[in-house]
Amino acid sequence: MDHYHPRRKRNEIIHEDEKTALLEGGNHISIALCDNDIPYIVTMSYGFDKANNCLYFHCANKGDKLDFIKKNPNACATIIKDNGYMETKCEHDYESLIIRGEMHIVNDLSEKKHGLQVLLNHLEKDPQPIFERNIKDDHSYDRVTILRMNMESIMGKKYIG
Amino acid sequence: MDHYHPRRKRNEIIHEDEKTALLEGGNHISIALCDNDIPYIVTMSYGFDKANNCLYFHCANKGDKLDFIKKNPNACATIIKDNGYMETKCEHDYESLIIRGEMHIVNDLSEKKHGLQVLLNHLEKDPQPIFERNIKDDHSYDRVTILRMNMESIMGKKYIG
Repeated sequence: MDHYHPRRKRNEIIHEDEKTALLEGGNHISIALCDNDIPYIVTMSYGFDKANNCLYFHCANKGDKLDFIKKNPNACATIIKDNGYMETKCEHDYESLIIRGEMHIVNDLSEKKHGLQVLLNHLEKDPQPIFERNIKDDHSYDRVTILRMNMESIMGKKYIG
Repeated sequence: MDHYHPRRKRNEIIHEDEKTALLEGGNHISIALCDNDIPYIVTMSYGFDKANNCLYFHCANKGDKLDFIKKNPNACATIIKDNGYMETKCEHDYESLIIRGEMHIVNDLSEKKHGLQVLLNHLEKDPQPIFERNIKDDHSYDRVTILRMNMESIMGKKYIG
């Protein structure tokens, strides 16, 4: 995907472990979707499933993004590690990923359980109390929608002084 | 634009001065574009021109986003004030704007000058040294592309505990 290489090669993050660290270290992601060539952007918490090369999200059972995803699953997302604007240099110190892939609504209960586990493991040191507060039995999963983004390409960029 | 109201009304930022503060306080914005229903996302520094209800950006004279904008100027952008993930609560403390509008490439020299001034005034306490380093005469503006986003709607959301 030529579109997703930075103009200045030296800014590109080449090493996979550096990309993985950004995926593991981030806690929110901005996702671009298209609806009849009108762009939409949404920011969500995420969980990174390294083994399956995908991200999981949770959201309410209704919402525009769900309608958009059903019509057009193409997504382009960014995770930004913001190390701060560099006053007097007119430069921003950052690391970022641009991820292309497809968004899917997870309907299978066992994958919903897996996705929520991935998400909470990613966000919380101890996810157990949150499960106990929110998940009484399998019916609890009816109240939440789990989304999966299959990652097809990951481009990384960073500030190099 | 019904699409751009939050599902939970109490999360919506209603007051214009709160939205203005986020526009004035941010220094980067993620912008979604569409190219034949394939989404694209790019993050840039910006300057807020309150009087003209627009944002200005600078970039190189070549790049995919310029090709996309020429074909389809529709844009949806987000500015995020990240106040941090709230461990054990499974909540993120944030304020954010979702801005819809159109992206334009600025060709007029006097507007290019204005746009770069807006951008540097926004980012730097003292933009003068940066001008002196980079702008020798009017030909210096040939080396930079200035973009303007006309803001058509601004929706704000924030975490409310």
